Amino acid sequence: MDRSHFEALDRADPLARFRHRFRLPEGVIYLDGNSLGAMPVSVPARMERALGQEWAQGLIRSWNDAGWYTAGQRAAARIARLIGAAPDQVMVADSISVNLFKLLMGACRLQRRRDPGRTVIIGETDNFPTDAYLVDSVAELLGFERIRVGQDEVPAAIAAAGERLAVVQLTHVHYRSGQRYDMAGITRQVHACGGLVIWDLAHSAGAMPVELDACGADFAVGCTYKYLNGGPGAPAYAYVARSWIESFEQPLIGWHGHARPFDFAPDFVPAPGIERLLCGTQAQLSLIALEEALEAFDGVDLGQVRQKSLALGDAFISLVESQLGPEAFRLESPRDHERRGSQVSLAHPQGYAIMQALIARGVIGDFRAPDVLRFGFTPLYVRYVDIWDAVAALGEVMRTEAWNRPEFMARKPVT
Amino acid sequence: MDRSHFEALDRADPLARFRHRFRLPEGVIYLDGNSLGAMPVSVPARMERALGQEWAQGLIRSWNDAGWYTAGQRAAARIARLIGAAPDQVMVADSISVNLFKLLMGACRLQRRRDPGRTVIIGETDNFPTDAYLVDSVAELLGFERIRVGQDEVPAAIAAAGERLAVVQLTHVHYRSGQRYDMAGITRQVHACGGLVIWDLAHSAGAMPVELDACGADFAVGCTYKYLNGGPGAPAYAYVARSWIESFEQPLIGWHGHARPFDFAPDFVPAPGIERLLCGTQAQLSLIALEEALEAFDGVDLGQVRQKSLALGDAFISLVESQLGPEAFRLESPRDHERRGSQVSLAHPQGYAIMQALIARGVIGDFRAPDVLRFGFTPLYVRYVDIWDAVAALGEVMRTEAWNRPEFMARKPVT
Repeated sequence: MDRSHFEALDRADPLARFRHRFRLPEGVIYLDGNSLGAMPVSVPARMERALGQEWAQGLIRSWNDAGWYTAGQRAAARIARLIGAAPDQVMVADSISVNLFKLLMGACRLQRRRDPGRTVIIGETDNFPTDAYLVDSVAELLGFERIRVGQDEVPAAIAAAGERLAVVQLTHVHYRSGQRYDMAGITRQVHACGGLVIWDLAHSAGAMPVELDACGADFAVGCTYKYLNGGPGAPAYAYVARSWIESFEQPLIGWHGHARPFDFAPDFVPAPGIERLLCGTQAQLSLIALEEALEAFDGVDLGQVRQKSLALGDAFISLVESQLGPEAFRLESPRDHERRGSQVSLAHPQGYAIMQALIARGVIGDFRAPDVLRFGFTPLYVRYVDIWDAVAALGEVMRTEAWNRPEFMARKPVT
Repeated sequence: MDRSHFEALDRADPLARFRHRFRLPEGVIYLDGNSLGAMPVSVPARMERALGQEWAQGLIRSWNDAGWYTAGQRAAARIARLIGAAPDQVMVADSISVNLFKLLMGACRLQRRRDPGRTVIIGETDNFPTDAYLVDSVAELLGFERIRVGQDEVPAAIAAAGERLAVVQLTHVHYRSGQRYDMAGITRQVHACGGLVIWDLAHSAGAMPVELDACGADFAVGCTYKYLNGGPGAPAYAYVARSWIESFEQPLIGWHGHARPFDFAPDFVPAPGIERLLCGTQAQLSLIALEEALEAFDGVDLGQVRQKSLALGDAFISLVESQLGPEAFRLESPRDHERRGSQVSLAHPQGYAIMQALIARGVIGDFRAPDVLRFGFTPLYVRYVDIWDAVAALGEVMRTEAWNRPEFMARKPVT
């Protein structure tokens, strides 16, 4: 295998035609779209209109005349298709953290009304920190018991909780290892115990088909700035299965979630639909950018996305092992397709410095404490040849020990 | 008095030189900056850079290299000056509603730790709906008692609650009537009873000097898209007095509020400072626009802003009464300067249709159910002559009964 083999794969790639939908920097191989997706080319023109025409000229009238009020609904409809959900079950607003809090509170209270004996929330020990913190916070607030277990112990913990199980909260694809849960299987098991499940889709939606309705999932949240390319910190989404919407109550109630917002009524009456999860006015400029960015998925087949994502990951693993030797890094991600998301993580004691040296060569991944280099594969704009070039650059960094220099060893302050 | 009198006032206005900092539509008199502030001229260029250079070219590196991480802190420092607060007590993130929830939860739990007998939250009957809903929500969640009283009954209710008083939550300037509370006096009274007070500054910050530190306020929230001109739905701010920060706990905990966010530690340890109120990643494009927009306040004297704001309001009331007759509308706002914010509200049974007809003539205010026409005065870009012209247009609408036409009577759907 040489570079020309990867060039041939690109020529045969049915997704290659979507790369022009993104504006990418020259001389950079971007393998961090799992942290911040690249910018769709159409966003700046949309934002120019939002500022110059809608805000500056339309002013307050733009809430109606430019469709600002309904931007969240339109974004939700686009996301719904990508996560296997009917659109009336998805809302877009706030951050993923705020939405996870709403869902945890709503799900736990729903369970308490159905059966006060169900007071166990199960989370994963090594989940993304915010998810773990919020499970703790909600458990404390409601007097529930929080159980944390390792990824492989989740099924046993669900079985052990049995009739005491209220809610299971898991991240579909792990942020550090890229390990993927069997959504359908876990959901089935949770339901068999009478529990409800909340899926965090941050690291899966947009990189693979997600089938919330088909899996019978109860709740889900996700962010939109990774594989969905919505822009830094773009508003998040939440999914509530249709069967739960009418009985769903969450404590962040505000006028946008009221059945008749413009009555400005003194008492809260929740909107009949998914809008009951809304609270205050949204960060509209970020929302407009997101709505526009989601057009980059028009006509995209997520099955093809998944296929290419796995092929890019396989190629990456195979090249790292063949060119750098099997001992150079510890592979943190599963090889098994069923259990892997859209990233490959490599562990190394000098992981931080190695990543800095690699970034200095124009290959951008990222680092997660304590020792993990993450490489994310975003099939709409990453090419097969990028994998070849990225591993070549990584090999050079390792062989020349370029990383072993003071400027790469010193951690950047994040302040 | 005629139009030339107002032209003379504009020539003598020390704030007139700031009007060029805003891009305003031709042929429009904008008296709705209390709902959505006008766009500062420098925002589009800043956003173009944020998209084209920082997102598209810098990608993930921009969190450090373009200062994205610290944009909230910089915006907070700018807002701090406008609300009379030392900057280390202000954070910018999320919506005003989400922040009010954090503050209500934190303040109530703080009181419960100090004295479990303090379980009364006092709110205003006719407060902005979200504030009322959230007081109800938090009271229910924590088993507190919520007491709602009319604006004039607040002091008596505080006195009556006495040793049972936990928290008072009020909006400094009322969204519909423009009536203003005596912040210093109420705060003193709440403290004398051992309570804590949370001020909502949505309709005051940016339109008048607010002196949180000098008043000894405990907590405050505010939005940034009204008098602060941050753009539609721009991120909100929260203030926690320095004396409470270390003991402040709120349930929306996330990695951005952790003492060491990049440790990705499994257990939450709050940041020592105001950052403990942060939760997830912010809507960064909206935040960048806000940071830029706040520059429009550079060098602005808020005393002059207040003076002009009241003068504009006085002129508006006086012209409406002299030119349309004292019976044309019921004045909903106080005449008294001490008790009035930066808007004048007029009530009329056909208020909705009248406002629509007025907007069609290029004079933009807004309508709030059941019968209120709101006119907001934003001294940085509204001129004295605009007041003359606005009242002239209103007079014409009333005299010709232009509002009494089907297109103005039919309410626009807000969907």
